[in-house]
Amino acid sequence: MHSFKALSAQFEEQFSKRQFPDHPANLYDPAQYILGIGGKRIRPVLCLLGNELFDEIQPDAFHAANAIELFHNFTLIHDDIMDKAPLRRGMPTVHTKYSDSAAILAGDVMLIHSYEYLNRIAGKYRTKIINVFNKAAREVCEGQQLDMDMEQTQPERVKYEDYVNMIALKTSVLLAASLQMGAITGGGSDGNQKHLYEFGKNVGIAFQIQDDYLDAFGDPKKFGKKQGGDILINKKTFLLLKALELCNPAQRQHLHQLMETNPDNKVDEVLQVFHDCRVDEWAEKEKERFSEIAYGHLEAIAVLSHRKEALKEVADFLLTRQH
Amino acid sequence: MHSFKALSAQFEEQFSKRQFPDHPANLYDPAQYILGIGGKRIRPVLCLLGNELFDEIQPDAFHAANAIELFHNFTLIHDDIMDKAPLRRGMPTVHTKYSDSAAILAGDVMLIHSYEYLNRIAGKYRTKIINVFNKAAREVCEGQQLDMDMEQTQPERVKYEDYVNMIALKTSVLLAASLQMGAITGGGSDGNQKHLYEFGKNVGIAFQIQDDYLDAFGDPKKFGKKQGGDILINKKTFLLLKALELCNPAQRQHLHQLMETNPDNKVDEVLQVFHDCRVDEWAEKEKERFSEIAYGHLEAIAVLSHRKEALKEVADFLLTRQH
Repeated sequence: MHSFKALSAQFEEQFSKRQFPDHPANLYDPAQYILGIGGKRIRPVLCLLGNELFDEIQPDAFHAANAIELFHNFTLIHDDIMDKAPLRRGMPTVHTKYSDSAAILAGDVMLIHSYEYLNRIAGKYRTKIINVFNKAAREVCEGQQLDMDMEQTQPERVKYEDYVNMIALKTSVLLAASLQMGAITGGGSDGNQKHLYEFGKNVGIAFQIQDDYLDAFGDPKKFGKKQGGDILINKKTFLLLKALELCNPAQRQHLHQLMETNPDNKVDEVLQVFHDCRVDEWAEKEKERFSEIAYGHLEAIAVLSHRKEALKEVADFLLTRQH
Repeated sequence: MHSFKALSAQFEEQFSKRQFPDHPANLYDPAQYILGIGGKRIRPVLCLLGNELFDEIQPDAFHAANAIELFHNFTLIHDDIMDKAPLRRGMPTVHTKYSDSAAILAGDVMLIHSYEYLNRIAGKYRTKIINVFNKAAREVCEGQQLDMDMEQTQPERVKYEDYVNMIALKTSVLLAASLQMGAITGGGSDGNQKHLYEFGKNVGIAFQIQDDYLDAFGDPKKFGKKQGGDILINKKTFLLLKALELCNPAQRQHLHQLMETNPDNKVDEVLQVFHDCRVDEWAEKEKERFSEIAYGHLEAIAVLSHRKEALKEVADFLLTRQH
């Protein structure tokens, strides 16, 4: 049994070698660039942890883990184009550093490369693993589209459950699928796979609520993003949607005015409304609610509890960070 | 043994059903849209023909054929964004009709969907088929990047063999891989697969030379594109590259002037230079050269010659069209 840190080092050792040929450089350098600017490799390590919950880590788990990390970075590149994001992990995004076309194509080739890893899976579980991967991959695209759709919708018209569903698709199903793919290589039963999937999915939702919270209320130095970045661009977040539901008519009008006029003190003013209608407290509770669902599923997995410790530690780490 | 037309109908019957869920409509409608605006389905039918060269068509060949057609349409969507193309098959391109973001994401989900088909391949050949698919998929991306790189290069500095290589990657390897994937499901030997692949690759190059020729010299009504579309945008084509090599200094200077100043009579003037330095005749011969290599490989495949008839007809059709 290994810790997250130990598996992270194992993963990185084999993943950090150059993944792509040298030529054509304008295709593969952008792909290698995003892999080189870091990230916590949470998803591939979840895959390894999912395997080790049931059995020793199989070589196939590394193939799956590599595919997952490549897929994740592919989505980052394409999402950053769509979101016109200038920075990723504190560095220029791929389309900013290179071009939109280079970023589209680098993403494409990374997605193909992830399937090259999946096709190396030797064991009897390959079909199942690729099915789980494909379902998650498709759902991530659906989540990104629903996110863009919601950006075009008046915030009051976005239903809370639709928003949770969008977040789950966009960010959580890949965490869930990573765990499940590992569980498959580890020989976990269908029932245990399902619990592990739900554990990951609910951790993901809780994490996103926390992420929204930290964007608004976190320490920008620790968080690595501008404070209130979501507020500045009127991004629909758990906080904004719930604030519009909880606040009184005067507060609602004030929020709308701030979103329309973008005054210099916009972030401070919006945060004041969030405080006044206690959406910060609500977010803490909502995060707790999804966390409890997650831990319940982890509990329900039929393996000795000491095998679950590393996964519990990861979840604790993800859900208690202050930055 | 079936004709191209008969297999085309068989393919279309099962492929023309809606490929995607209804929701989210903004994700799946653009993907369905491009499938609905036609195309000759050459690649998937080549896959079926490749199978039937050796044996009765297997269900796996249809899975592979569907994956190929989805992949091809994915590349069209993304290429059209990069090329800022307004029209495809006489209809608005996906990014024009919807948006760049919708087009990026629709392409992504189509690529994933193609792997869903590949994962349904039941037979023992799946690993090999996916390897062939992945190699071609990656090479198509490389070809697109090399094409964009060459657009940024002075035409005199583009080496002819590099240009042929780019064209082969961008357009021919998928034709070749389609045939090979079919040959695999049909149980063709490695040697026969290789000949079939080379047949497809060389037909593809010959076809592209013809395509460049027709863009310049074809009848625009029959060809379905503006005459001289490539000339108007200074696109590097077989004709332009060779013309710059064959022409005298005065003609070269004239060509450069036309490309820089874009006068109203640009197309006619450039065509006159092409005629004067006989690049039209050269193109016919060069097409013939690649055609002969292709037919040589078809000849070398160790099956009874009557089994090759349908493939020969397709090649004849592709390489003798006047529009």
